[in-house]
Amino acid sequence: MNGLYVIGVDMGGTNTAIGIVDARGTIVSRSEISTGEYSTGQSYAEALGKAILDLIAQAGLQNQIKGIGLGTPNGNMNNGCLEKAANIPWAKTQIVPLSAMVEQVTGLPCKLTNDANAAAIGEKEYGCAKGMKDFIVITLGTGLGSGIVSNGQLIVGHDGFAGELGHITVVRNNGRLCGCGRTGCLETYASATGVARTAREFLEIYPDNKSVLRSIASRPLTSKDVYEAALQEDELAIAVFDYTGKILGEALCDFVAFSSPQAIILFGGLAHAGDFLLRPLKAVMDKQMLNVFAGKTQILISQLNDAEAAILGAGALAW
Amino acid sequence: MNGLYVIGVDMGGTNTAIGIVDARGTIVSRSEISTGEYSTGQSYAEALGKAILDLIAQAGLQNQIKGIGLGTPNGNMNNGCLEKAANIPWAKTQIVPLSAMVEQVTGLPCKLTNDANAAAIGEKEYGCAKGMKDFIVITLGTGLGSGIVSNGQLIVGHDGFAGELGHITVVRNNGRLCGCGRTGCLETYASATGVARTAREFLEIYPDNKSVLRSIASRPLTSKDVYEAALQEDELAIAVFDYTGKILGEALCDFVAFSSPQAIILFGGLAHAGDFLLRPLKAVMDKQMLNVFAGKTQILISQLNDAEAAILGAGALAW
Repeated sequence: MNGLYVIGVDMGGTNTAIGIVDARGTIVSRSEISTGEYSTGQSYAEALGKAILDLIAQAGLQNQIKGIGLGTPNGNMNNGCLEKAANIPWAKTQIVPLSAMVEQVTGLPCKLTNDANAAAIGEKEYGCAKGMKDFIVITLGTGLGSGIVSNGQLIVGHDGFAGELGHITVVRNNGRLCGCGRTGCLETYASATGVARTAREFLEIYPDNKSVLRSIASRPLTSKDVYEAALQEDELAIAVFDYTGKILGEALCDFVAFSSPQAIILFGGLAHAGDFLLRPLKAVMDKQMLNVFAGKTQILISQLNDAEAAILGAGALAW
Repeated sequence: MNGLYVIGVDMGGTNTAIGIVDARGTIVSRSEISTGEYSTGQSYAEALGKAILDLIAQAGLQNQIKGIGLGTPNGNMNNGCLEKAANIPWAKTQIVPLSAMVEQVTGLPCKLTNDANAAAIGEKEYGCAKGMKDFIVITLGTGLGSGIVSNGQLIVGHDGFAGELGHITVVRNNGRLCGCGRTGCLETYASATGVARTAREFLEIYPDNKSVLRSIASRPLTSKDVYEAALQEDELAIAVFDYTGKILGEALCDFVAFSSPQAIILFGGLAHAGDFLLRPLKAVMDKQMLNVFAGKTQILISQLNDAEAAILGAGALAW
């Protein structure tokens, strides 16, 4: 009974979630290790490999595992390395051949890609991109990530790093400063962080507006605050989503002109803002799309559970 | 001796060039028919098919032709149709299954794609993209076309029309009106027409500048005029190329963030402006590229003869 299950690993800056996934996309067993507490890639890989083997043993699934899929920040699918991941202490300035290391510890074949690509594979195997050959997944979290599938294959580029759509420049003059050191990047506007930033700006620009968001003074505003204010029909909060949706929608028109996807799937925290984001986004796409593409690309919200999707997507790499 | 040659067809708005191409990429025989003088797609397809068969017979190459490749405006590789091509009278408002029609007339297998995709295939087979799996060809003519290759395959999208990079929006406010009806499209700036337009604008904006271009009053300015003025070290003409190169270079940074190509190949009339265009283009790419891609993507000028490349590229479809 060889290869009825795969291991999906979702590596975040703080924790690494591990799951055993069956062929139907059910996570049958889970565990977790810390990501950041190791001082070298080798010690992390050993801990991860051991945690995987322990999980398999506990589940009594020895010899039934087809392989391991790893979704990581700055993961390079071409060479299986974690390359200069700013949020991982042991990989900040280094190229760590994590896939090969985990293979060696576990004796199981291992594939690695970045988290947004893993999300795209997850949508293709278990989500709303089932059966699609051309689609884009946009992950809207702290930043904006993307996984692009064309001709049924992930676009990874010659160096393994294609799909950095969060760093498309959307504002050419006086754009917001981005974590990447440049200005005007899409993710400084269209992300959870971007929404909070827009809200803070709008509160300053419109001092007379009586938004409920003004009552939050004890801690930094979050995109969740803005969403909850919008649910209460707060005018400023709704304007924040209008602004965000318009900028994202304009960018999506450009993405369609590039790869003409059948669907663009929005994934992650901010995607749950639903119509507050979708209404202005779709309005600008209807208005500005190049004629030949008008009305052809579906905008979908991922139906996968955020916490599980990353494990499922990574695991799907291993099938 | 079956299949030693292919037929390459380059269909323009006025004329259609036909060539017999050998396996090394030499055009061994050529002919031409009018594109526009037919009233229906069927009558054009019959004339084209007959011209192809005549050319084969004259060359004595019956039974040695592997197939036909067609490069056309608005060609859809997914279904072999010419779809609503604005410059072709008999296809202006229609979807013409040209590939199937030409197959029927000639009895030879036929493939069709748009001209920029044909240029990309030509570069891959015979030009500077030989051996590359990830690259983009940008055709700089009257407009700006693009052929995108990722994972060794053309990106055509779910509808066959991917790669409309001329219609990426580069100026969001008060952008130039584009032939597509929208404003701020890349091709209104970075194309032969765009260069001429920028020159006319600069002549107006800087009335005191003593550009040699002011002496051209009897006819509309062309990009060739601007190039020749730049060769004479005309300050305004050089500023026009600086402006064009900067806008194109900024857009190329976004394209790199999308598909991370090994090279971007510039093709067509305006590409011959060489360093006048390349210097400002590369300067802005060096300055603005996302760190992970810095210095990785080569910018190349096509070495293929413009007149032959379209036939070669179309023909390469048929191998």
